[in-house]
Amino acid sequence: MTGWIRIAGLGPGHPDLVTPEVSAALAQATDVVGYIPYVARIPARDGLTLHASDNRVEIDRSRHALQMAAEGRRVVVVSSGDPGVFAMAAAVYEAVESGPPEWRDLDISVLPGITAMLAAAARAGAPLGHDFCAINLSDNLKPWPLIEKRLRLAAEADFAMAFYNPRSKSRPRGFGRALDILRDACGPQRPILFARAVSTPGETLTVTTLGAATSDMADMRTVVLVGSSATRVIDRAGAPIVYTPRSVSQ
Amino acid sequence: MTGWIRIAGLGPGHPDLVTPEVSAALAQATDVVGYIPYVARIPARDGLTLHASDNRVEIDRSRHALQMAAEGRRVVVVSSGDPGVFAMAAAVYEAVESGPPEWRDLDISVLPGITAMLAAAARAGAPLGHDFCAINLSDNLKPWPLIEKRLRLAAEADFAMAFYNPRSKSRPRGFGRALDILRDACGPQRPILFARAVSTPGETLTVTTLGAATSDMADMRTVVLVGSSATRVIDRAGAPIVYTPRSVSQ
Repeated sequence: MTGWIRIAGLGPGHPDLVTPEVSAALAQATDVVGYIPYVARIPARDGLTLHASDNRVEIDRSRHALQMAAEGRRVVVVSSGDPGVFAMAAAVYEAVESGPPEWRDLDISVLPGITAMLAAAARAGAPLGHDFCAINLSDNLKPWPLIEKRLRLAAEADFAMAFYNPRSKSRPRGFGRALDILRDACGPQRPILFARAVSTPGETLTVTTLGAATSDMADMRTVVLVGSSATRVIDRAGAPIVYTPRSVSQ
Repeated sequence: MTGWIRIAGLGPGHPDLVTPEVSAALAQATDVVGYIPYVARIPARDGLTLHASDNRVEIDRSRHALQMAAEGRRVVVVSSGDPGVFAMAAAVYEAVESGPPEWRDLDISVLPGITAMLAAAARAGAPLGHDFCAINLSDNLKPWPLIEKRLRLAAEADFAMAFYNPRSKSRPRGFGRALDILRDACGPQRPILFARAVSTPGETLTVTTLGAATSDMADMRTVVLVGSSATRVIDRAGAPIVYTPRSVSQ
């Protein structure tokens, strides 16, 4: 048997947002590796071994997956959303680069998925319809001053912005500081959206302004979107529509 | 019959990258509306009318779709990639905002798709594995100086970058100026990727450096990715792997 690794994106949660490419890889796999809540989304079946591991062990998990593929197993490494956006693809390639040379010749590929910011944007309208950036607000793997610098430059560039991992129990204060910086740089009227657990039964979507936003509106299951200066809110009977026009006046 | 609009992302090209949600909407549609090459991807069937239109008529196309939905038809507006990224979702909502008030009460939703930069990143490794931005390089709808400003600020923020619509027959020179700015801001050794027609029979992927990149490497079917200062290239027997590590040293 020739082993392989597919680093696959499961999308934001709903099975209808999993691509056929990812479903086919899962159907052929002998092993699925990933963070506990993502592996829990994979139905058990004969011939498939599920390897769930905790958060913050991404490199160990990657090495385990690579070792199994080197032994001839067909391994799917699962991420929620897209594996290339703040997820397992970079971790697996970090492990490849620092591992034995023969790992570079393994059959490895990345299967893209619907990333959280695009699922959230779809629910709200089209807030990322013009130039935008994506920033991971966790300072577990980078210094906080770099996050602040990027927030200020993103505001100066007038990007719409998507923020992943805004807040967790172990990082309760950073997101409030990020909101302060954004209020200072973008003003209190700028639209901000909190999209939690999009496409799952626990989905919530809150549209407000930077002036009214508070840090407890976000947790680790929330993706936060902030509009550019051109972003518009269309009020109507139901939830408002938030979109960023394609044009900037010449 | 109650009409609706679904603004749907067809992904980069391969049918295995179309979500089941989008396939289900297409199966229920009475009408499909979109740019000629995207509508050409939808198989004809009884009961389905295909409305293909040319580029740069996005607002007319959106009004047509909204009018049909208001008349009770089930309309899918198709984009390639994700409809919320430089595509039809913003155009439809622009038409809603400027249209008759009753259009705000239509059943409209956006069905996300695999956007070009994430399909390209997956092929290359994980070049967008850390903070990144997405910029449309077309100056059809915004002033060129704003593009230059965003390029310089994105480089200062040390984002990885994805560029949509880098170059077309009617805009032959802008991309070369963008490359000059990036070389100046990021240096000649910075990795750059040209991914064309990913997941289609015409797919090509070129990995080079800003110093060696030339503007004729891109056309309208190309998405261009530029690494951050941390992006790494792993050489191996086949195509190199390009990835941006999750960590920035503290």
